[in-house]
Amino acid sequence: MHREIFFISDSTGITAETLGHSLITQFEKIEFETTTIPYIDTKEKAQQAVQQINKVYQQNQQKPLIFATLVNPKIHEIIATSQGMLIDFFRTFIDPLESELGLKSSFTIGKSHSMVDFEAYKNRIDAVNYTLAHDDGIRINNYGQADLVLVGVSRSGKTPTSLYLALQFGILTANYPFTEDDLQTQNLPAAIQPHKDKLFGLHIDAKRLQAIRNERLPQSQYASLRQCQREVNEIVALYQRENIPYLNSTHHSIEEISTKILAITGLERKTF
Amino acid sequence: MHREIFFISDSTGITAETLGHSLITQFEKIEFETTTIPYIDTKEKAQQAVQQINKVYQQNQQKPLIFATLVNPKIHEIIATSQGMLIDFFRTFIDPLESELGLKSSFTIGKSHSMVDFEAYKNRIDAVNYTLAHDDGIRINNYGQADLVLVGVSRSGKTPTSLYLALQFGILTANYPFTEDDLQTQNLPAAIQPHKDKLFGLHIDAKRLQAIRNERLPQSQYASLRQCQREVNEIVALYQRENIPYLNSTHHSIEEISTKILAITGLERKTF
Repeated sequence: MHREIFFISDSTGITAETLGHSLITQFEKIEFETTTIPYIDTKEKAQQAVQQINKVYQQNQQKPLIFATLVNPKIHEIIATSQGMLIDFFRTFIDPLESELGLKSSFTIGKSHSMVDFEAYKNRIDAVNYTLAHDDGIRINNYGQADLVLVGVSRSGKTPTSLYLALQFGILTANYPFTEDDLQTQNLPAAIQPHKDKLFGLHIDAKRLQAIRNERLPQSQYASLRQCQREVNEIVALYQRENIPYLNSTHHSIEEISTKILAITGLERKTF
Repeated sequence: MHREIFFISDSTGITAETLGHSLITQFEKIEFETTTIPYIDTKEKAQQAVQQINKVYQQNQQKPLIFATLVNPKIHEIIATSQGMLIDFFRTFIDPLESELGLKSSFTIGKSHSMVDFEAYKNRIDAVNYTLAHDDGIRINNYGQADLVLVGVSRSGKTPTSLYLALQFGILTANYPFTEDDLQTQNLPAAIQPHKDKLFGLHIDAKRLQAIRNERLPQSQYASLRQCQREVNEIVALYQRENIPYLNSTHHSIEEISTKILAITGLERKTF
């Protein structure tokens, strides 16, 4: 079974893609082919998209699914004339919200809200710059500004998680890899001690760690299961001894790890 | 005017936050206070969330808005008993999709689809590692694997955009800052020549560039309007002379810049 999918938006299309994708993966038996058409901001572009959708319908004699986020009601109306099945994640809810709030939405009355976005934008860029400047143990003496310091053994997912927390939530995230020395002395590095309340540990299963390290340095001591198992055991002991909150990242996406860290630490998003 | 918002999810809550936020910013006259409750994966947690929502209702005598992504229908049912106004971005569309596709969704029949996610996950991690290893002109002789090479003057937004493209879409993105030398010789660096078809230019307004650079190195020559204006003029001339596609990043978010680059270059997402 096969079905064509369109992600349609008058903006980036990212939300339509994300939510649409999580809906269609609920139907495993069907193979989906996806096309994203973002930035549909004129009637002409909307009409072109309708033609593209109708062409697929005529070829397959099956309604393409259209996952959309359309702020502009006129663009929505045009897309709704197509032969696909339209699911608009945005417009579906504007009318009920207008009723509940007793107000017209600002698109209708023509206002924008760029300053809100600008502040969130600046927080994100500042956080990314901070995170890059404090990745992988760089500037360990300079964690005063950090909101969070991720710790863990080498290749346990600290860097992608740090970057995601910075980009998505504006969290100033440093990260520090515990070395063999740190693990063997069984003490936190002195420079980290004053920031102990900012530490959060990543844990990873030894077999998964071995696979990841083996891609980087095949057949090395560093990538041996024995070495991975030993580091993983030692670091969990250290988390527990030092009362550092931690979670196992093995079976979670970057988004899941990041949001779980926010939930556990209570850190506030700076992006809205 | 004031209204409480809950973002509720049995997963990360990120989609509920993103889409809910774009809906409520359509109502500018209202001040919103937001609370995110992710990972509601048991009946007990759902009941606790209902109590939290009802408490807010009783305090304010106004329905809190609940933006939710609930895959689990039983969790949805419990949340629906609360005194808030529930908008579920996920469950609202499952029934119509089941009808259209003539199938039950896989949650109902208890299957998961972790391998799909695993491949996307690996692509993202690989792309982040590549992007970090090729940030800011590092390893300029090693662009063979790159899907995309972002170019631009210093502080024009290359690094955050590269990281977003890697994290969100799995695009291997290198970036190279055009130096004064590059701009003055009016030639592309020799190492870049073979990869000219992968180049994409970022452009930025001189005044915005001045403000950004001034935060980094206040009162410097580097941050002077004159210097910024000169570099910006020279780089646009270079983009045009060398036929490098480019866009002006000044008034756009990282998401907008990234998705516009995909639209212009035709690069395919590697994350689904």
